[in-house]
Amino acid sequence: MQIYHQIKDEIINGTRKEGDILTGSRELARTLHVSRNTVDNAYSQLLAEGYLIPKKGSGHMIASLPELKGQYPHQACEFTEKHTLKSEMKSHPSVLYDLTNSSHTSDLFPKSLWKRYTLECLEMLDHEKKLAVYLDKQGELYLRRNLLSYLKRIRGVHCNENQIVITCGIQHSLDLVCQLLCDEKITILMEEPGYHKAAVVFQNNGLEIQSVPIDEDGIIVSKLPSSPKNQVLYSTPSHQFPTGVTMPIGRRFELLKWAKSNHAYILEDDFDSELRYYAKPIPSLQSIDMNDTVIYIGTFSKALSPSIRMGYMILPPQLLKIYLDKFQYYNSMIPILNQYVIAHLIQTGEYDRHVRRLNHVFRKRLERFLEEFSDVSEKVSISCNGSGQYFLLEFSAMANQDALIRKALEHGVRVYSTMQFWQEKADCPPNTLFLGFSKINLTDIPDCVKRLKTAWSEWL
Amino acid sequence: MQIYHQIKDEIINGTRKEGDILTGSRELARTLHVSRNTVDNAYSQLLAEGYLIPKKGSGHMIASLPELKGQYPHQACEFTEKHTLKSEMKSHPSVLYDLTNSSHTSDLFPKSLWKRYTLECLEMLDHEKKLAVYLDKQGELYLRRNLLSYLKRIRGVHCNENQIVITCGIQHSLDLVCQLLCDEKITILMEEPGYHKAAVVFQNNGLEIQSVPIDEDGIIVSKLPSSPKNQVLYSTPSHQFPTGVTMPIGRRFELLKWAKSNHAYILEDDFDSELRYYAKPIPSLQSIDMNDTVIYIGTFSKALSPSIRMGYMILPPQLLKIYLDKFQYYNSMIPILNQYVIAHLIQTGEYDRHVRRLNHVFRKRLERFLEEFSDVSEKVSISCNGSGQYFLLEFSAMANQDALIRKALEHGVRVYSTMQFWQEKADCPPNTLFLGFSKINLTDIPDCVKRLKTAWSEWL
Repeated sequence: MQIYHQIKDEIINGTRKEGDILTGSRELARTLHVSRNTVDNAYSQLLAEGYLIPKKGSGHMIASLPELKGQYPHQACEFTEKHTLKSEMKSHPSVLYDLTNSSHTSDLFPKSLWKRYTLECLEMLDHEKKLAVYLDKQGELYLRRNLLSYLKRIRGVHCNENQIVITCGIQHSLDLVCQLLCDEKITILMEEPGYHKAAVVFQNNGLEIQSVPIDEDGIIVSKLPSSPKNQVLYSTPSHQFPTGVTMPIGRRFELLKWAKSNHAYILEDDFDSELRYYAKPIPSLQSIDMNDTVIYIGTFSKALSPSIRMGYMILPPQLLKIYLDKFQYYNSMIPILNQYVIAHLIQTGEYDRHVRRLNHVFRKRLERFLEEFSDVSEKVSISCNGSGQYFLLEFSAMANQDALIRKALEHGVRVYSTMQFWQEKADCPPNTLFLGFSKINLTDIPDCVKRLKTAWSEWL
Repeated sequence: MQIYHQIKDEIINGTRKEGDILTGSRELARTLHVSRNTVDNAYSQLLAEGYLIPKKGSGHMIASLPELKGQYPHQACEFTEKHTLKSEMKSHPSVLYDLTNSSHTSDLFPKSLWKRYTLECLEMLDHEKKLAVYLDKQGELYLRRNLLSYLKRIRGVHCNENQIVITCGIQHSLDLVCQLLCDEKITILMEEPGYHKAAVVFQNNGLEIQSVPIDEDGIIVSKLPSSPKNQVLYSTPSHQFPTGVTMPIGRRFELLKWAKSNHAYILEDDFDSELRYYAKPIPSLQSIDMNDTVIYIGTFSKALSPSIRMGYMILPPQLLKIYLDKFQYYNSMIPILNQYVIAHLIQTGEYDRHVRRLNHVFRKRLERFLEEFSDVSEKVSISCNGSGQYFLLEFSAMANQDALIRKALEHGVRVYSTMQFWQEKADCPPNTLFLGFSKINLTDIPDCVKRLKTAWSEWL
């Protein structure tokens, strides 16, 4: 390495010039008291990198490198460290309780099962000689078959396993849908308020977004534009994000009729419908669609973990055809082992048991929150349809989200604004907050709510 | 469930009509000899789904569902099964040896280490309370730090950990780069021949592709368009795909000079540079770029497994800024556990040991192929720079790829066309084949080559 670096540096700084002939390796080895092999290795490397060229007969000479002078780079990159700092600052030191809806307590992850199934699935994959191959781009059949039978049972979907595509989650599904549709100029219709992390995917794919208002039954069908073609509605019918309303069956049929007569697609984001604490999950919109207008997307982020990074979509046949054509040369983006572990969890029934356990835990947490807030029920009202991982808190008094959030933070509790969900920020009610109940332990809830009540005493 | 389905069906088929009042739950329970709870559960579900509405006072009545008639869907989806069949047919029954370059033999995957580290990393993540949270969208710092020190050592890259983005592999990296750049109309310059699976990503992102010829030193810089802005060159300098040539240092500096003076980016795809059997890996183009023109992308597919689905990219600071802005609300697409396992492999030195072992095995396989073909060296020449997982086989005689491939298949060996790598198919030499040597065991190589020689006897 010393010989290699010395010669390279001399070439770069001009000490050795084009056409100079290098000392023979035997001679240099003798001079330096090293083995000839050592010198040969250094020369080979310089040859492979193009600093040397072979001399006619034998030996090596310096290559012609006119572009090289003064080009050698700075060794250190001075880019600021502020982004690291920023991400390390993220967990505010004084936050005792983070009422986020986008994760849950670590103890709810089925760690032991995941360990056991990882070991089992590695053996399965070894046996099938699948540890080092490219995968089915739609996802492994083993997973798609098990997922299909689960989704048929729980969400009423009707399709076959070929229509399923395993993805890295909701955003990846949306990204793929954008690429499937983007040959024509598409307008995306979004519920207002709606899921901002979906909106940003549409924007990054260059699509135009138009907002459509919702009422207590979900999206208002009469407010959807009629007749123009190339429209795609992104909707959360079973648990509207963030208001939490459930679209009743009548509205669902109305919506499907709109889609059919306008040749529009409905992107049904069914992100947390497994988590339902009082009634059974409501059958999906896809389950009652008979015109192939619904693209169904789901995720394992809510029931397993957001760090699993796996979701799925069900494509109607005509879109599947486009997918198979456009993505013919793509590879799946999801590790095979994770696909097998989840397939195995579903197949053995452990996934169902896990979801039941989760529902039990989340229901208790939700109810404890409702209970702790019950004595101020004239001052704040809670909207929640008994599912998912969050509820909305609306103050009767005039209030300002920023002030409410700041006050809560001063008392160690992080709560969230609803502003981010509105395309038209001015329409966002200033006195409504977004609170998640999945990342807080049951026993911490009384203290958490007590802190909130203290923080918000002037509005209560 | 029986009560629920019976009432739902009667509403759908019109037996029960809007405004009809349901029998009280107490009475129905008595009639059916079931508990009142059972009836209440069925009613609650119908209420939640919107088939019923609460009657003033008490009880339930059928909701107004004008859109519902005749809308109920077919239960089965008749989409053909041909795609399953197609994917199941993929492994041709008569193929004994598949000379693909895109996977390797299952035994080379570090299965035991992966098992052990999975268990250890699950405990680490549990301890850090990270089993059920959203991740750093750029990838976990633990991985980025370890990866950076590895890439500095092996590929000479200069950057800091904030410039690294962990991705699902090469195609995902390219997809992200397209989204970073797509605000302006970009032309992608590609080596001809080049990597078709990259081309398809650019096409799906709506970008225009222009081919640039290569010679025995890689891309010909003088053939690159000059002056027009918004150009991005996709290049494989350390191991040109598929010709296998290595770009020497002089050409590298020429290329960087072109990029600087044209404000162009170079996408350096460094897909398999760890796998190098004679010299050390050649420092990356990124390592000698002092103008932030290189976007460096790499993958774990070659050294670990393509089923791991993990890669990375290094963004120059100005693109990192765009990334942080555009992808602010995105979540990472890579499972946290896999990130930790790989970080741990690198940190403990096991990754280096694994790569050394792989290089030893692949070198032996390559040499065995060269040896087995040595007696026909006047009829076929092999191009390979002693790295990666493939070589090109060129016939001296006039030959036709299709015929060569068909003949080989008749003798149980799958070999590959080079046609797919050419944008301009007519320019593809008809007598050159693409052979991978990573998915065949050393002891099988003599039999495999014997079969090929028999299959190709008329050309040898």
